[in-house]
Amino acid sequence: MTALNLVATPGGLARVEDQEAVLLDLPYGDVAELLALGEGFAPARRARELRRLPLADLEGELLAPLARTRAIWGVGLNYHSKAELTGRPVPDEPILFLRALSAVSAPAAEVELPQDRSSQIDYEAEVAFVVGRRMSRVRPEQVWEHLAAVTAANDMTARDVMVATGTPSLAKSFPGFGALGASVLDLSAVPDPEDIAVRGTVNGVVHQDSSTAELIFPVPDLVSRISHFAVLEPGDVVLTGTPAGTGQDRRVFLGAGDEVEITVPGVLPLRTRYRALPGHS
Amino acid sequence: MTALNLVATPGGLARVEDQEAVLLDLPYGDVAELLALGEGFAPARRARELRRLPLADLEGELLAPLARTRAIWGVGLNYHSKAELTGRPVPDEPILFLRALSAVSAPAAEVELPQDRSSQIDYEAEVAFVVGRRMSRVRPEQVWEHLAAVTAANDMTARDVMVATGTPSLAKSFPGFGALGASVLDLSAVPDPEDIAVRGTVNGVVHQDSSTAELIFPVPDLVSRISHFAVLEPGDVVLTGTPAGTGQDRRVFLGAGDEVEITVPGVLPLRTRYRALPGHS
Repeated sequence: MTALNLVATPGGLARVEDQEAVLLDLPYGDVAELLALGEGFAPARRARELRRLPLADLEGELLAPLARTRAIWGVGLNYHSKAELTGRPVPDEPILFLRALSAVSAPAAEVELPQDRSSQIDYEAEVAFVVGRRMSRVRPEQVWEHLAAVTAANDMTARDVMVATGTPSLAKSFPGFGALGASVLDLSAVPDPEDIAVRGTVNGVVHQDSSTAELIFPVPDLVSRISHFAVLEPGDVVLTGTPAGTGQDRRVFLGAGDEVEITVPGVLPLRTRYRALPGHS
Repeated sequence: MTALNLVATPGGLARVEDQEAVLLDLPYGDVAELLALGEGFAPARRARELRRLPLADLEGELLAPLARTRAIWGVGLNYHSKAELTGRPVPDEPILFLRALSAVSAPAAEVELPQDRSSQIDYEAEVAFVVGRRMSRVRPEQVWEHLAAVTAANDMTARDVMVATGTPSLAKSFPGFGALGASVLDLSAVPDPEDIAVRGTVNGVVHQDSSTAELIFPVPDLVSRISHFAVLEPGDVVLTGTPAGTGQDRRVFLGAGDEVEITVPGVLPLRTRYRALPGHS
């Protein structure tokens, strides 16, 4: 069984193979819509190949692979390294939030910094999972069989908005603040789903470097917990939190011209560039 | 220009006219999908009539008219009457939240009470608005021209979960907790959009009876505020808060067999019945 790694292109969904994109004969607008069928990657596995093109030809052209997801759940403080650095106590329960879906940005997007509302705009490198089968009140040990895919996320946050409003849904929903991708990898291709590496760089310098093995609430607990409050549907996204090394930890926030890259093994790198709000510098 | 009032039926979208439903030749699954086109009710106005049937024949058959919305924003404390009763100070800014879309229930749904997680499950009668045109950083005076429709909402909340987690997205996202409808009314049919009445009854007894004229943050301020943090897309829903008279105010919470009805003038009544979680009574 081929392990699939999918991207969304202007010509439709494509499978990534080495340095090529194999366009597939599928009617779905993005990977979330495909996974929403509840059949995982099977329809992509069966799909006819339309044509191949070099991945390099799609540079800057890739679409958000999960733009049509119906939920993006996130968690506030979920790495021991982050808890230690911030001095915040390890929470008893995950601090969960929903992000507005209108905030999703494409891979290689240029995000406008909302500098009139925030002077503390920050990146967060994260591992994200995509639901494959409907979950209602599932036990932790049942979670993995319900997840279909993994990708990278840049879970951007306006830190001062978070403090001022106490509302992650506001601090994290500015246009472009929900970057997911660049590709969506079949979870069955991942050797150890409990230990997925994640790395975040700013302008080429590594600032975050960790693994989901370091989570305070591991993926099964986190996802099980959500499913006891809200139903998770196929195509829904769950972020897992960010390790130490955000701008907040260094008191250095994002400015125009910065480029953040988030990498998760097997997933195409997720790059976000930042530009000034018109009239700001 | 006909003022439209739409319902979603198993046979597609229909216009409500007196005691009849006029099925329309439209390919949209629900009213959110129709409004997501950004043309307001125009496509429904142009649509060919397929057939008429008595509304009574659709009793219990109506689908959630806004199930495919991409956002449900709500506000925590937005009626002076509610602030006075609870003794909480009037907030400086609206307390905003997002509800999981998987929580949307159909009109006349029977909602299972999550009694294993909450002993304080409550109704909230509210006026809800549906976005007609994309909004990014709009001023309050621009808001009305960007809204397309109005409907009723039962913004259910597990009060003890709210206290325990501090997270409205958890306390308000249990299956069925987002009831919207039963019909979606063209806002141009509303005589005074700044003064829309809303009434909530439990088992036929009126407990909530107010109007959006009593809001702490009126609709233009509320919606403008959201649009400065997150883009509002056509088809997105904004709830406006609930007046005094919830179960919380009377220390009486919902139990199996209860029926809540929310009415907003011109909108078909929104009824929710409650049943016990299996094994609970």
